[in-house]
Amino acid sequence: MSIEIDRERFIETMKEQADIGATDGGGLHRLALSDEDKAIRDWFRDQLEALGLEVRVDAFGNMFARREGTDPDADPILIGSHLDSQPYGGIYDGALGVIAPLELLRTLEEEGRVTEHPIEIVNWTNEEGSRFQPAMQGSGVWAGVHDIDAEYDRTDENGERLGDELERIGYRGDIPVEPQNDYEAYLELHIEQGPYLELEEKDVGVVTGVVGFYWGAITFYGEADHSGPTPMHYRNDALVAAADVITQVRRIPGTLGDRTVGTVGYVDAQPNSINIIPEEVTITFGFRDPSDEIVAEAKERVLAEAQTAAQREGLDWEWEQRHQSDSVEFADTCIDAVQASADDLGYDSMRIFSGAGHDAVHLTDICDTSMVFAVSEDGKSHNEDEYTSWDDCYSAANTIANAAYRLATDE
Amino acid sequence: MSIEIDRERFIETMKEQADIGATDGGGLHRLALSDEDKAIRDWFRDQLEALGLEVRVDAFGNMFARREGTDPDADPILIGSHLDSQPYGGIYDGALGVIAPLELLRTLEEEGRVTEHPIEIVNWTNEEGSRFQPAMQGSGVWAGVHDIDAEYDRTDENGERLGDELERIGYRGDIPVEPQNDYEAYLELHIEQGPYLELEEKDVGVVTGVVGFYWGAITFYGEADHSGPTPMHYRNDALVAAADVITQVRRIPGTLGDRTVGTVGYVDAQPNSINIIPEEVTITFGFRDPSDEIVAEAKERVLAEAQTAAQREGLDWEWEQRHQSDSVEFADTCIDAVQASADDLGYDSMRIFSGAGHDAVHLTDICDTSMVFAVSEDGKSHNEDEYTSWDDCYSAANTIANAAYRLATDE
Repeated sequence: MSIEIDRERFIETMKEQADIGATDGGGLHRLALSDEDKAIRDWFRDQLEALGLEVRVDAFGNMFARREGTDPDADPILIGSHLDSQPYGGIYDGALGVIAPLELLRTLEEEGRVTEHPIEIVNWTNEEGSRFQPAMQGSGVWAGVHDIDAEYDRTDENGERLGDELERIGYRGDIPVEPQNDYEAYLELHIEQGPYLELEEKDVGVVTGVVGFYWGAITFYGEADHSGPTPMHYRNDALVAAADVITQVRRIPGTLGDRTVGTVGYVDAQPNSINIIPEEVTITFGFRDPSDEIVAEAKERVLAEAQTAAQREGLDWEWEQRHQSDSVEFADTCIDAVQASADDLGYDSMRIFSGAGHDAVHLTDICDTSMVFAVSEDGKSHNEDEYTSWDDCYSAANTIANAAYRLATDE
Repeated sequence: MSIEIDRERFIETMKEQADIGATDGGGLHRLALSDEDKAIRDWFRDQLEALGLEVRVDAFGNMFARREGTDPDADPILIGSHLDSQPYGGIYDGALGVIAPLELLRTLEEEGRVTEHPIEIVNWTNEEGSRFQPAMQGSGVWAGVHDIDAEYDRTDENGERLGDELERIGYRGDIPVEPQNDYEAYLELHIEQGPYLELEEKDVGVVTGVVGFYWGAITFYGEADHSGPTPMHYRNDALVAAADVITQVRRIPGTLGDRTVGTVGYVDAQPNSINIIPEEVTITFGFRDPSDEIVAEAKERVLAEAQTAAQREGLDWEWEQRHQSDSVEFADTCIDAVQASADDLGYDSMRIFSGAGHDAVHLTDICDTSMVFAVSEDGKSHNEDEYTSWDDCYSAANTIANAAYRLATDE
C-alpha cells in the first residue's frame, strides 16, 4: 500500500520556506545560526507543533520530532536533511529534504495511517559548513564523529563563536547530542547537485553511496616587495606558487578517474596590493572520488606540486588538513526500499553515487541509510540559479515518503 | 663650495619622523590623509616654521615652503618627496626625500648661506597610491596630469572620499594646485627599492630616468557551483583562468627584456568558499621596462593569455586599464649636478634607471629633473624590512643637498 503526498500543499510549503532568508536573486541567504536560521527553525517548529508533535532540540541545535508507531519495540525510521543554506544558495538544497518528510507526516496524520515503526523527522544543524566549518556538523557531532566542545568553539569570519550563536538564537537544547535510541533506518532526500539524472533523463536517483573527499589548505610564504624595482630573479612571489597549484588541481582529476573532481575554491593573498609582490597566499584544495585510494593519491600529487612550486619560487610553505571523509556505501535494505518505491510509483530511476557529502554519510555509522536524489537542472547548486522543477521535486518527495512508509510498515 | 648637512641631527630627525605612525614591526603605517598623515604633516609644518619659513598648502594638500634667494629673477629649485607610506611600509621610502631637504634648509640657515635661486621644499600628497589610487597623485594633479575634481572623488576601500578626508585632516589649502611660478629644477632623493646599488657596492645612485609601466585588471566570469558533484568538464572556473594568467605574468618578462618585470599583486575571488567553484575572479597585472615598446608588448601578451585562458575554461572576461606611464629620461643639467656632487663628496656612484615611479616623473613636465638613489639593502621596500644604513642615508642626503645647492648657486 503506497502513500501520496499532497502536491499542491507540498509546493506551497516549499515556497513558504523559501520566503525566509530569500535573496533578491531568487535564492536563499540562510547561514547556520543566523537570524534567518532562527526564523526558519521557528517556522519549522510551528509546522510540527501544528501536527501535535513535540519538538526536541538537542544541545547542538539538531531538531527532532517523532510520530509514534504501533509497535513499542520497533525502532524509528529517521528522515530529514537541513534548513541552512550557502551565502547565496538555492531554495531546494537541504530544504527539499526537510519539507518532504514534513509532508509525509502531514499526510499520515490527515489520512489516519498507522505505522509499526515510529517515524522521526530531523533538521540537522549547519550542514553547509559555510559560516562555520566543517560541513555536516550537527549530524557529525550527533553521530560521535566530532567532539562537541571543539565544535562549540568554532568561529565564523567575524570571530563569533558557534556555541554563543546557538545560545543567541535559542537553539541550544537540553538533550544530549547523540542517538537517544536505536534507529531502524535513515533516509534523506536531496537535490543531486550534479548533471547525471538530467543527462540520463531520469525522474529520480536511487543513491547507493557517497564519494570520499579530502579538503586541505596550503599557505605559501614569500616576501613582500615593490613590484617595480625588484628584478624577477629577486622575487619570492607567493601568488605565483599558488597559481601553479591551482592549475595543477584543475589537471590532476583528469589523470586519475572519470568521476574524480578537484577544486580550489578559496584564495587569500596578502597584502593584496597592485603594487606589491604577494607575501603570503593561502589556497584551499578539495578532491572527491568514489575511490578513497584515488582521493589519497590526488592529495599526494597536489602536495608534491606545492613542494615543487615553493622550491621554484624560493618560498616556505605549509599545509593542513581541513576535512577528510571516506567514501561510503549505503545499506541494501534502504537502497532497495527507495528503488521499490520509485518503481511502484512509476518513476524512471537510476542508481547513482553522490558527488557531494550529506548528513547521511554520518548516519551510516548509526543505522542503515540511503538517499533519494532529485534532478538538478544543469547540475547547478550552491548558487541562486539552482533549479529543480516542481514535477521533479514532487517525484523525489513521493519516492522518499513511500520508502520511509515502506520501511516503517515493514512492507 | 660644497655644503655638509649635520649627520647626527639628520639621523635624529629621520628617527623622529619614524615615530609617527610607527608599527610594531619597525615600519610605518602612515596612509595618505589618515590621522597618521595629519600628524606627520603637522610635525613637518612645525619644523619648517621653526626655520622661520611660511608653509603653503595647496588645495590638494601638497605642502611647500620657500627659502628666498638673492636674485629676484631666478626661478626656484624644488626639492622633496612624500611623507605618506604603504600600509606596512618602511621608514625610508619617501621620508628620506623630505628630511634631506629639511636638513639642507636647516644647514643653509645655520651657516647663513645665501643662494641666487630660491630653494623650495615639497611634501607631495599620496605618493603611495595605497589607500587611494592612483599613486603619485598630488604631484600628478599639480603637474596637470590629473583632473582635480576626479581625484577628489576617489574613494578608499571603506568608501571614504579623498576630498572629504583632505578636509577632515585640515589639509585642503587655498592655493591652486598648479605651479605658482616657473621652476629652475626639481630634485628628489629616494631609496632605490631595488638591489642594483648594493650589488655593485655603490654609495649612491645618479638616476637618469624612470621605467614606463602599465597597470591593468582582468576579471573572469564563470559559474558558481558545488565543488563535489559538478564534473570537471561541466565547470567554468574563473580562478583557474586567473591562475593561468598569473603564471604567464611570471613568465612574460623573461621573454622580453633584462629589466622587464611583471606582477600580479591583487586577486579577489567570489564567492571564495572551499566548497564552491569560483564564479568571478579579478586580478591586477603590472609590467615595467625602460622601453615603452616592451611594456606595450607585455600588455598585449597578457591579454592574449587571458583570452586563451577564458576560452579554455568557457568564461566571459573583461579588462581595464588602471594606470599607464611612459618611461621618462631626466634632464642632463640635473643629472650632471647630481653626478658632480657625488664625485665632489667622494662617493662611489653609478648611473641607474628607476624601476619604480616617483613624483619626479610628473615634474619632468614642469622643469628639468633628476633624482638621487640611496642603497636599499637586498632591494627591499614596501614592507617593514626595508632598510638603508645611516651611512647610506647620509651619503644620499648629502649628495642631493649639494646638487640642489649647486643648482641654486649656479655653480
